[in-house]
Parts: sequence; C-alpha cells; structure tokens
Amino acid sequence: MKKIFLTLSMSLMISLSSIAQEKLFNSSSIQSPINNGDGTVTFQFYAPNAQKVEVTGDFLPQQKIEDSNFGSYEVAGVAKLTKDENGVWKYTTQKLEPELYSYTFNVDNLQNIKDPANIYVNRDIISFTNIFIIENQEFDKGDLYSVNEVPHGNLSKVWYNSPTLKMNRRMTVYTPAGYLEGKEKYPVLYLLHGAGGDENAWSELGRTAQILDNLIAKGKAKPMIVVMPNGNPNCQAAPGEWSFGMYQPSFREGGTGPKNTPIASMDESFMDIVNYIDNNFRTIKDREHRAVCGLSMGGGHTFQISRKYPKTFDYYGLFSAAVNTKDANFETEMKTLFASSPKLYWIAIGKTDFLYKMNEELRQYLNSQNYQYKYYETEGGHIWRNWRIYLTEFSQMIFK
Amino acid sequence: MKKIFLTLSMSLMISLSSIAQEKLFNSSSIQSPINNGDGTVTFQFYAPNAQKVEVTGDFLPQQKIEDSNFGSYEVAGVAKLTKDENGVWKYTTQKLEPELYSYTFNVDNLQNIKDPANIYVNRDIISFTNIFIIENQEFDKGDLYSVNEVPHGNLSKVWYNSPTLKMNRRMTVYTPAGYLEGKEKYPVLYLLHGAGGDENAWSELGRTAQILDNLIAKGKAKPMIVVMPNGNPNCQAAPGEWSFGMYQPSFREGGTGPKNTPIASMDESFMDIVNYIDNNFRTIKDREHRAVCGLSMGGGHTFQISRKYPKTFDYYGLFSAAVNTKDANFETEMKTLFASSPKLYWIAIGKTDFLYKMNEELRQYLNSQNYQYKYYETEGGHIWRNWRIYLTEFSQMIFK
Repeated sequence: MKKIFLTLSMSLMISLSSIAQEKLFNSSSIQSPINNGDGTVTFQFYAPNAQKVEVTGDFLPQQKIEDSNFGSYEVAGVAKLTKDENGVWKYTTQKLEPELYSYTFNVDNLQNIKDPANIYVNRDIISFTNIFIIENQEFDKGDLYSVNEVPHGNLSKVWYNSPTLKMNRRMTVYTPAGYLEGKEKYPVLYLLHGAGGDENAWSELGRTAQILDNLIAKGKAKPMIVVMPNGNPNCQAAPGEWSFGMYQPSFREGGTGPKNTPIASMDESFMDIVNYIDNNFRTIKDREHRAVCGLSMGGGHTFQISRKYPKTFDYYGLFSAAVNTKDANFETEMKTLFASSPKLYWIAIGKTDFLYKMNEELRQYLNSQNYQYKYYETEGGHIWRNWRIYLTEFSQMIFK
Repeated sequence: MKKIFLTLSMSLMISLSSIAQEKLFNSSSIQSPINNGDGTVTFQFYAPNAQKVEVTGDFLPQQKIEDSNFGSYEVAGVAKLTKDENGVWKYTTQKLEPELYSYTFNVDNLQNIKDPANIYVNRDIISFTNIFIIENQEFDKGDLYSVNEVPHGNLSKVWYNSPTLKMNRRMTVYTPAGYLEGKEKYPVLYLLHGAGGDENAWSELGRTAQILDNLIAKGKAKPMIVVMPNGNPNCQAAPGEWSFGMYQPSFREGGTGPKNTPIASMDESFMDIVNYIDNNFRTIKDREHRAVCGLSMGGGHTFQISRKYPKTFDYYGLFSAAVNTKDANFETEMKTLFASSPKLYWIAIGKTDFLYKMNEELRQYLNSQNYQYKYYETEGGHIWRNWRIYLTEFSQMIFK
C-alpha cells in the first residue's frame, strides 16, 4: 500500500508542478549562486533583453564614503555581470572567506532585484536581500552560521504582558536542545536589537539559533535560554505581527511603530521581561545566571540597563553600542555598577564604525576610573557580520 | 535622564538612517499598495524608464486555462499600470471583498518583481509574492487573517526525534493564549501541508495563528494546540532550516528534500509526532481531543492516517485532498474506520479544483456505503484562499 500511495503522490506532484502550481517551481534551469567549491561563487541572471545587470553585496570590496559629520564609512560594492550567448548574465567572485553574505541585482534601472534562483532571503527593516553561506571544513564562521547535524534548540514567538508599557508584546525565545523534554534549569541571555529592528532581527539576521546550537554542541558555550525582545517601547511586535495594520515601518520616536510616544523607555520596562521569563521558563533566577547584551541601540539599552539594575545581571555586552558618557547621574551609576563587580563588561566595535568615537570616550572614562572591562575590536563597521561575531564571542564567555 | 536618552536615540536613528543604514529605509515617497478605504486598492511603482509595468495577483479576475489532462483550471490575471508625468506607474483595482491577496509586478521583461514599497511577503515553495489584506468591520475573512487586539497564542519551531524515520525533524506548534502561564490541558489539531510545502506553510500562507487567535477570542473555536509537522518524510525541515545546505528545493519522491528515498511514509511515521506532542505538551490524550486535517497531499496523508489509526482521532478534514479509492485494503479499512463512528469526516473542495473528480469518486463511495460525512464546496480551485477558509470552518466544528 505504501508503494501505491507513493506512486499516487508522485503523479500528483507532477500534475501540481505542471499546472496550477507551475509558477511555484521555476521552470528555468538557471542555478544561482553556484558555489564553485574553491571559495569562489558564480551568480547567474537570465535577462536576454537587459542592457545592464549588476550584483551588489557585502562580499565585494566595500566603497569608502567620506562624510563631514560622521567621518568615513563603507557601503557595499557593485560588480557588473557579463551576458553570454543564451541571454544569461554571469559574474564570478574572487575567493571568499567563510561567512554569510548578502546580495541583490540591479537590472537596467531597477535596483534591489531578488535572485529568482535563490529562495534564501533576509529582511533588514524594509530591505530584502538574498543570502548565501560559504562554509569550510573547520569550525569557523561559515559553519557556525549553518544548520548542522547537531541537537537543535527551539525558537518560539512568545506573547507577554508588560504592565509598565500597558501592552501585550512579542519576543523571540531560544530554548536549548533538551529544554522541552527535560527538567533542568538554565541561565538566560537577553539579546537586544538595534534601531529599526524588532524581535525577529537577532534570530534571522543574527543567526542566533544556529550559532548557539553549534557552540553548545561543541561544548564551547553553556546551554542557555536566549531572550530576544522587541526593543521599541511604542510597539507590540515586528511589522505585520502587530495589530496596527500592514503599513511600511519607518523611524519614529521610540521605534518603528505607529505610536509616537512610548509611555516608558526600554530600560524602565525591562524588568517586565525578566520577570515574565523567570515566571514562565525554567531559569536560574540569580545574577550569576543572567547576561544582557545588544547591538547599536540595543547596546545603548544594555548600557542603560547595566546602571539601572546593577545587581541583576553579571555579564554585559555592548556591541557597536550607542553610549553617552554625558548622561545625568552617569558617574554615580557607573560607580555603583562597578562597585558590585560584574563578572564581565565587554565592549566590541569595528574600526570603521561611526560610533567608534563614542565608544572610545567610554573606554577612556572606564580607564580613568580603573573599572574592569574587556575590549574587542574588529575590522569593518556597523554591520550584521560584526554582530554575529560579537554574539559568537560573547556567548562563549558567559555563565562559566 | 529618560529625555536625554531619547534625544540621543533620535539623533542616532537619524544618523543611522542617513548614512550606513540609508538603504534600509527607502528614501522614496512612493506608497504601495494604498488602501483607498472603499474596497479599492492602488498600486504604485516608480520606473520612469520602463516601457511596461503590469501587476499580477489573485485579486484580478482569473484567466481560465483548458487542459486536456486535467480539464479547466484558473491562473491569476494581469493588469497594466499607467505611467504618470513623474515616472510613477499606477493601477487601481475594482472594489475587493475582504480577503488576504497576493501580487507581484512585471516590469518590461522581468517577472515576479517585488513591490519595493511593501515589506509584507509570503514564500510559497520557491515563489515570493507581496501580500495585503482588505479588512472590514464585520468578523469576516479580512479580519480573521489580521493580527487583532486579542490574546495571542505562541508559535514555536520544535525539533523532535522520529524513531521511525531515524531523523531529527522540525515542526511548528501553535499553543493558545494562556498555555505558557497556565496548567490546563488542551485538545490537539494536527494540520498537514501540501506537496512542496513544509512546516512553515500553514503558519505563513495559512495564517493559522491569526485565524485561531481570532476564533478563540470570539468563542467560536475551542482553545487548542495546533501541530504543523513537515510532511516530507525524506526531510528534516523547511529549506534553509535543514542540514542539507542552502540549495533550491525541487520535487523528489517523498518531498522536496535532497534524499530521494524516505525509509517510511508519512502515515507510517505519524505516531512519532503524536507521541512526542503527548509526552511534551499539556494535551488531553484521547480520541475525542484529537483532530487531523490537511490540504492536497496533506489531505491524502489525512486520508491514509484515518484508515491506519482508526481510533486515534475523532475529527478528520480533507481539504482539496489527494484521495485514491483504488488503494489496496481501501474498503476493509474504511469499514473499520466508519464502524468506529468518528465524530466528523469532512470533505472540502473548490468547484474548479483539478482534484474535484477524485473527491467526487470518494463521496460516491461514501454515499454508496452510507458512511456519515459532511461536504463543503466552494468556488475556485487548488489555492490557499480556499484552504484558509477550510481551516476556519473546520476548526469551529471540532472538540465540541
């Protein structure tokens, strides 16, 4: 009977494929991108009538921009594809390092065209890009960001009530492999996104589940719960997941949502999240088993939270953080924080990040006071490639 | 201090928006689609140098195709946009019924171009489309598919082990509002996708969480757990979530994964899923509190499962199902199934579905044997619009 049903399924699939669902499976034989196995990648785009096809992405040498306000920063480079006799445009990259890369095409006057042969995309606020991963044989970035044959944690979209913000809100929670079946209690990492982002940013652009699955499987990180809340206090959830309708998000005070004035800030409402997690997940409810970190605005939130609740978390990570040493009460609060001897105060930033100077000022202040912190500097700027590296580094240093 | 930080955040946001993250927020002022409030929608696309811009979508009158093998079926219609003096192409629809609609643009020779002004997309196998929802003031489809101000259930991506398939596999689990905080036990609906789909299909294209949240909030459906497994027995998970790499999925025996020969069929391995759910979620573990339904291939799976485990589920839903009354042991198994008096055997299909005849044969057989079933016929064919309606109807009939 199994055989009969498989035969039926096959004929059904073929019929689906050939008629009503024809468009779902692209009939074109174009493959793109092609991993050539030697670190190079070939892009292909079928457009016999186009005059110009370009690919733009973060695997190309970046273009340096000089700006009088923010100094120099870099944007993605552009490469031209060449048309062959069949109307297929092609471009082969140089040898690429293991990494997760993103790209789109420009075709004649249209920009940000998706690769029709690649279903893998990321959304970054309102920008869609295709992605691909270069892996290697070692345990390095490309592998770390891939789904491997290791035990997997679960990702949940969890709605909770915030009494402070008077709002039901959504967060993403990673529970490590074995959580659902077991009884063990776990430490918690609170992982905060940047301006314009939402509760999906870290799990999608940041590859949190893949990084944690892989590090935990190798024994390099402790099994932990990772909580990724929505950092816009005027907002319930990511675009489309909120009850405000399906409009295009744009920057507003307090985030990307439609309500302009949040009734409390992220740091003022933050314990609503910690309390909800402690009440509804199997956590170890003490300082030694709580860490908080974030990127950009989320690094700023971490910076605020570290001073507002100086005995709640033992590990702080500031990734390309928005930090202001001119805040009122800054010195008093920093004194209290460091008097409590947090196990880790970690600052990470890229050399060309436009927030570099801000972080340099913070480090100078910490040095002047002899406050203990660790510093991690990378190439590049204010980009997800760096934030994935910072998460990888930070998650291996905590709860040990 | 709050004020100071908000000011900092604002200037940071502006700087992010104006430089490194410039592309993330589209500087164009084009809005699309525009809901005109009277049921019509206007699409806009900026392309001053294009010769032709079309929109294609399921809100347009469908085109009828005649096929000698499958009879007649329908595909999405196409409408031409008109260019104004600013290079913006426009098209306004007729008055549309409340519904979730999908569309893409064709620009000159390029097809399936995403609307740059709309971040809301669905992936159906390898096809991306933009989506929008027309709501109304009544409790109807458009509202049912929207996120409303009601208590929300959680969606989790859950990894489980299938001893029969010897594989770790991924499924999507909806737990109703209150599940995480409470102690109550719930009935379970197993909801199966079609050929080419995966464990994300029902929650994304099928709007399961929105439909269930809204129906439960109105008291129209019982609070229930909804389990959406991956129906490809050769596959661990959805594309990109499996450990097989990031290649383009295509139809193979047993599903869309890279492994050609599954070691067992979906129905043979199905109790692995039921057992895992019963062991790790707060379920009511009896026949009266279990339902199974599915669309197309998943309707075929439901058809198999109903006969293989005739006393495990009390409610069966066959949505546009692939059913074969010529299966070996069909008559004996149907006799056993209906002798056990299932509370509901529900068949739903659209008038122009290419599987209509197959379902007509099944109904004729059921009639000839006097087996009790219910039948629900809609307009249209083998499309998600119908499957969302069928889920809406079916979920209100079960566990009552």
